[in-house]
Amino acid sequence: MSKLVKNLKEAITLCGLKDGMTISFHHHLRNGDYVLNAVVDEIAAMGIKDINLHASSLFDIHLPVIEHIKNGVITGIETDYISTGVGKQLSQGILKNPIIFRTHGGRPADIISGRSHIDVAFVAAPSSDKMGNITGKNGKSACGSLGYAFADAMCADKVVVVTDNIVDYPMYDYSIPETNIDYVVNVDKIGNPSGIVSGTTKITRDPVGLVMADYAAKVIKASSLLKDGFSFQTGAGGASLAAAKYLKDIMLAEKITGSYCMGGITGYMVDMLNCGCFESLMDVQCFDLDAVNSLRTNPKHKEVSAEHYASPDVKSNLVNSLDVVILGATEIDTDFNVNVHTDSSGCIMGGSGGHSDAAAGAKLTMIIAPLVRARVSVITDRVTCISTPGNTVDVLVTQRGIAINPLRTELRDRLKDAGLPVVDIFDLKKKADSICGEAKIERAKGKVIANVLYRDASLIDTIRMI
Amino acid sequence: MSKLVKNLKEAITLCGLKDGMTISFHHHLRNGDYVLNAVVDEIAAMGIKDINLHASSLFDIHLPVIEHIKNGVITGIETDYISTGVGKQLSQGILKNPIIFRTHGGRPADIISGRSHIDVAFVAAPSSDKMGNITGKNGKSACGSLGYAFADAMCADKVVVVTDNIVDYPMYDYSIPETNIDYVVNVDKIGNPSGIVSGTTKITRDPVGLVMADYAAKVIKASSLLKDGFSFQTGAGGASLAAAKYLKDIMLAEKITGSYCMGGITGYMVDMLNCGCFESLMDVQCFDLDAVNSLRTNPKHKEVSAEHYASPDVKSNLVNSLDVVILGATEIDTDFNVNVHTDSSGCIMGGSGGHSDAAAGAKLTMIIAPLVRARVSVITDRVTCISTPGNTVDVLVTQRGIAINPLRTELRDRLKDAGLPVVDIFDLKKKADSICGEAKIERAKGKVIANVLYRDASLIDTIRMI
Repeated sequence: MSKLVKNLKEAITLCGLKDGMTISFHHHLRNGDYVLNAVVDEIAAMGIKDINLHASSLFDIHLPVIEHIKNGVITGIETDYISTGVGKQLSQGILKNPIIFRTHGGRPADIISGRSHIDVAFVAAPSSDKMGNITGKNGKSACGSLGYAFADAMCADKVVVVTDNIVDYPMYDYSIPETNIDYVVNVDKIGNPSGIVSGTTKITRDPVGLVMADYAAKVIKASSLLKDGFSFQTGAGGASLAAAKYLKDIMLAEKITGSYCMGGITGYMVDMLNCGCFESLMDVQCFDLDAVNSLRTNPKHKEVSAEHYASPDVKSNLVNSLDVVILGATEIDTDFNVNVHTDSSGCIMGGSGGHSDAAAGAKLTMIIAPLVRARVSVITDRVTCISTPGNTVDVLVTQRGIAINPLRTELRDRLKDAGLPVVDIFDLKKKADSICGEAKIERAKGKVIANVLYRDASLIDTIRMI
Repeated sequence: MSKLVKNLKEAITLCGLKDGMTISFHHHLRNGDYVLNAVVDEIAAMGIKDINLHASSLFDIHLPVIEHIKNGVITGIETDYISTGVGKQLSQGILKNPIIFRTHGGRPADIISGRSHIDVAFVAAPSSDKMGNITGKNGKSACGSLGYAFADAMCADKVVVVTDNIVDYPMYDYSIPETNIDYVVNVDKIGNPSGIVSGTTKITRDPVGLVMADYAAKVIKASSLLKDGFSFQTGAGGASLAAAKYLKDIMLAEKITGSYCMGGITGYMVDMLNCGCFESLMDVQCFDLDAVNSLRTNPKHKEVSAEHYASPDVKSNLVNSLDVVILGATEIDTDFNVNVHTDSSGCIMGGSGGHSDAAAGAKLTMIIAPLVRARVSVITDRVTCISTPGNTVDVLVTQRGIAINPLRTELRDRLKDAGLPVVDIFDLKKKADSICGEAKIERAKGKVIANVLYRDASLIDTIRMI
């Protein structure tokens, strides 16, 4: 008994993939992923058209998909994140149907509830046995957690594992069991290891970033949340990592032991775990090799599903117990709404990922961003796209001051008492405008090319063609 | 944020439990379980009636339920196994509705498919955090695997964790995540450790048992299945354990490394793992403390869900890849049908558990049983109750000879070539009858008190009132 089939073509045929169907992918191989392109190429070669591409994220390595969009092979995209290069193309309006943007928590909720149906899931797996017990922890293309693939594997009508490392049956340390898997395809390489681990996971050396990071750590210290049991999420941007570094110093000095740390996990979080700053890492996605190694070897470093991470449909999740999250922004407006989907011209260059999930869940949601980027203020009257609603954002940290959501008066008082440079967001905007000149925003007026769904599946904004 | 509630009564009230609803329990605390009785007592005290009791198994520690059956609190039972004392009572026909017997694989299949609906699952958990991340590996009432509880937790409308060991949030080595859990109740004790581990897990010293065990190991050796990658399931009966011991000696002598071992896991299986006889243990249920300790500490000892173990609804499961299973029987007939539900008088004293699942899946299904017990032949013209259909049974090993299912001519030839005492099952029956005198079976003629479902949910037999 074996689910191994000859190649992708045979798997696609056996799955009965037809025009108009939905195929899905996870993004744990990040910018090193070979699987999505290989599958879409094969589908195109087989003459199948009008496919809805349901991927937890799209990276620039997936640029070849653009040709398949132009050829009518791909006519729809549902995703949580689109990187700059692909986003620029899609902003030209080349896709037949509007993109559906979801959040990392909303996606599994929609899949598991049946609101979003997947016909065939293709699950890239760094290791698999012949029956489809899979893990991301081992193999030449190890990526660590497979957290975003759980819902796809559980719910898709057909599930194809694509691996470059077949191990003996049964793999005993699987993440996703054979119970979900229909076919296994063994290929030469599922990805490029140097692209699987992100290039962004370095602490910033930029003085502006370091000032923001210092403020961020001090805001957390002053917030009253930093005590034993503290839980924390941060991203892998340079300033966020620097903030984590400063936070670590405070936690060690004050002998504070936190409960758990989340986010795209990097070696910096692993270091905090190993130093005793946290009891555990809850890992829905690894960003670097240190994280992969730690997940493989340290039982305190636990792989979690996207639904456990952030689904609003489950009985509880990890973001809802979170104390503090540090997040980025391409824009933030004076109502504290945050845009991470587009640049200020409205061109797609990101997506919520877990941004709005963590913002909704955490007790303290902090945005850190430089006040001005390339002579454009980060603060606007109204963000080009609402990714995360302002009522879930508590504080904006810039190098020129810290603005508090007026809803959070207690936090404002605490930060003022701590001597932090608290400023009104309107004053901060004026400062930026005095540097850049007031921005003249030209709203894109073309057709709607993307519907942005909030984590509860409601429409929170739309994105238009450039 | 916490799901902790004051006591069982509050949890039951918050769940909205009403007359006529279905409540469920797992049986990992076995004959040491305090939770089922405590919940049913509380329900009775609250005046709720007409409850359907959906438990993966019932043990004699649950005898207090009999009073609640007589009082109309419990009017239905769905289960995979009922121990002798409870079975004797139920065979009197005291329950309002017929019992529904399932298999350990059929139960999760019926629950997950929605064919069997659970209103409120009560999940005994040796460790839980305040949000309901749970494990059976740690705590004073540690039971190891929680494999049979996964489907209940995933599918019940409401899920109540009952624990006697609250740990810090988030428990990082959970088996079942908080995503499924509504309420957590912290009680003094969920069970009696001496009853949680089975008293039956000792190798037999009985000469008859040792002869059967020796034959069993030799049958496996002669079967052509015993080679690298070999997979094996056995129960915890004394003769089965002795067979495993003899098998271990053969595997070590011949330097054979099997793939995985299953079954209620005991220290004997752990020993085989540690000696290198197998690469892994796939554990849906621990039978003793050595198994619990091994599951906690050895990554090669993996907790698996009942659906991964044996559900016929999933895309593949572990029993279907099994080479050899050794199983018991209270009766076997000349068509190789096996009864493990009743004694020969038709009195309930067991149930399929994983018997018919493993029999259906394994390449070689072996029944071992003494030819005669208490002057009753194990071989009958027709079993009192068909638990496992004869076409899934390959060989019967008794101390007086080995009978092969006539469908398995190749196996018969192999065993004969190996010099094993192969005999016709009718001749074996004659031998037994010559010892006992031919049995005069009185079929129970009372009302149907139990419907026995095969693993595919079809009705395979019924059991009548004594």
